[in-house]
Amino acid sequence: MKRRVLSILVDNTSGVLSRVAGLFSRRGYNIDSITAGVTANPKITRMTVVCSGDDLVLDQITKQLNKLVDVRHIKVLKTGESVNRELLLIKVKVAPSQRPSITSIAQIFRAKIVDVGKESMIIELTGEQRKLEAFLDILDEYEILELARTGLAGLSRGSEDIQYL
Amino acid sequence: MKRRVLSILVDNTSGVLSRVAGLFSRRGYNIDSITAGVTANPKITRMTVVCSGDDLVLDQITKQLNKLVDVRHIKVLKTGESVNRELLLIKVKVAPSQRPSITSIAQIFRAKIVDVGKESMIIELTGEQRKLEAFLDILDEYEILELARTGLAGLSRGSEDIQYL
Repeated sequence: MKRRVLSILVDNTSGVLSRVAGLFSRRGYNIDSITAGVTANPKITRMTVVCSGDDLVLDQITKQLNKLVDVRHIKVLKTGESVNRELLLIKVKVAPSQRPSITSIAQIFRAKIVDVGKESMIIELTGEQRKLEAFLDILDEYEILELARTGLAGLSRGSEDIQYL
Repeated sequence: MKRRVLSILVDNTSGVLSRVAGLFSRRGYNIDSITAGVTANPKITRMTVVCSGDDLVLDQITKQLNKLVDVRHIKVLKTGESVNRELLLIKVKVAPSQRPSITSIAQIFRAKIVDVGKESMIIELTGEQRKLEAFLDILDEYEILELARTGLAGLSRGSEDIQYL
């Protein structure tokens, strides 16, 4: 099943997130992640939806999304023609003697150490999903205490097809 | 109205995002942002919800969230005791002659330039929300073409009160 990234401009109204997410889940369509934030126009929110499933069903969902009053514009972000990034915070159990090795892993991935506790460290990493997965693979030998991911945010490259709202 | 950050552990089921978001919106409670991603346990998703509104209503919502079968644990992330980060992608209209000045703004904020087009640049920035707002303020003199934000992801500091699921 192909993974798709949709960039959706919606009115910044209460409940729009649950309406959009509900449209996918009611059709049993799997949302891998959904992120949302206001744009330069505070009345407009941009949502990035990562989903995977049948092409035909996605076409139907897109048509239904377009019918929602809150939805202004839908664009499919194509790999290579877009910049997609996710943020990951991970808390790892780290004894003081292990700090140097975690620090060097962080440096290789250009991750930031944002908190150091007696027995733990929190690391922040951003990148494409493959980079985050590779980082998590390497940290597999440590005990992961907590993990928070934002999901993907994306923009198309270049300055064509801009929606001024 | 106080801004609150909730960290919610839920079962990774289809529709859980729309159920959680729906609970807030049905009570007219404003969600500033909501992010979600699987944890180290692929059956469990961690959601970070930023919301603002009346304390009493939030208590009611928390009680109702706890009643949802999918919800495993709810924690309020307190400022100072937690690490909160958001990711921002911004596409700015930049003539070739303006590139050096945008690049130096990016350096000051430790932002990354992730795409350069003939007439535009995409910049990636992560940080606390105040940092992102300050960055957007400075970019105000440029034309912002597109903007995508993930919303906040957060973890509490230190290694107490960890939920092993």
